[in-house]
Amino acid sequence: MTDVHPPLINLDPEAQALLFTDARTANTFTDEPVTNEHLRAIYELAKYPPTAANTQPLRILYVPPGEARTRLVAHMSEGNQAKTATAPMVAVLAADTDFHEHIPRVFPIRPQMRDDLAGNPDARERMARFNATLQIGYYLLAVRAAGLAAGPMAGFDADAVDREFFTDSTWKTLLVVNIGRPGDNAWFPRLPRLDYTDVVRHA
Amino acid sequence: MTDVHPPLINLDPEAQALLFTDARTANTFTDEPVTNEHLRAIYELAKYPPTAANTQPLRILYVPPGEARTRLVAHMSEGNQAKTATAPMVAVLAADTDFHEHIPRVFPIRPQMRDDLAGNPDARERMARFNATLQIGYYLLAVRAAGLAAGPMAGFDADAVDREFFTDSTWKTLLVVNIGRPGDNAWFPRLPRLDYTDVVRHA
Repeated sequence: MTDVHPPLINLDPEAQALLFTDARTANTFTDEPVTNEHLRAIYELAKYPPTAANTQPLRILYVPPGEARTRLVAHMSEGNQAKTATAPMVAVLAADTDFHEHIPRVFPIRPQMRDDLAGNPDARERMARFNATLQIGYYLLAVRAAGLAAGPMAGFDADAVDREFFTDSTWKTLLVVNIGRPGDNAWFPRLPRLDYTDVVRHA
Repeated sequence: MTDVHPPLINLDPEAQALLFTDARTANTFTDEPVTNEHLRAIYELAKYPPTAANTQPLRILYVPPGEARTRLVAHMSEGNQAKTATAPMVAVLAADTDFHEHIPRVFPIRPQMRDDLAGNPDARERMARFNATLQIGYYLLAVRAAGLAAGPMAGFDADAVDREFFTDSTWKTLLVVNIGRPGDNAWFPRLPRLDYTDVVRHA
């Protein structure tokens, strides 16, 4: 637990470690179940950070162990199947391309935006995917805030997952995330991060 | 400052408030400058949360007040121009479609992924945009962790910003963010968030 820049960061060192500096992507989990109350508590944090026009297009399908989990595992890439099968909880994170239906409630300053977007499915899909992906960033840190480890996985067949679970809806799968308490040998060694000078320019 | 679910969230209430429950998108800023040391401290947190194959495609152009800021403001939508002109610091957040060049260093487990991606610019652009957008979620919370307010803005001409600043590079603009200490009347009233039952299903 290291406070990287004590005078410059307001977040206390324990919280820095929990969310950023010590937190790791878990590859194994204990069999302790993740409760519905825990999932609700995660959402009560994850719902707050910003989205464009407060549109909040992120949607979450929780797939507990059982028949539905087996159907999901079939669409994961081979290297992700064993951990997806055994995780206490799996979240399928998706973007709702019909997010605009909620605009009069969530953005009452400009309710007519719903009708403008109703006629523009391409703009809607771009906005849904971008803002839901931002929200996945918030969500993964909220899972960590709840003392749980997240294992995000990009290796799966998104179209097949949509056909399996979302044919009756306008949700489009973006990412699959294993959630639970870290198990034995949960961590690979930490991989190197890019340096500030690799990533940042000053105009 | 409210601890929404005390027994279910490990993150302490002050940290919950700083990052999630009390934090707000600022619309005005004081004239206190944002120092380079502060920007480095933000990166030292934001760099850690996960990306696919540790690819870290997010890039950041910081535009301080002055000539470059004036050029940026010209490409913002009218409603965002005044705040972009006066913010102590503005970050142009971008995805680097040549992120794969770093793969042998950041994902030494599978260095050949660089060459596989070199021949697939479409896959690279999708991967760059998705993972950089995830990282923007982490970045916005890292700005808050540093005690600063962020004002993300989607209303701008991304192609024009790319032409203005990134013709010599492979960076693609995703979002523009004002950064500083909140000024007078910095907050609009909090807009409503969707309910858990609007967003979550259980399979």
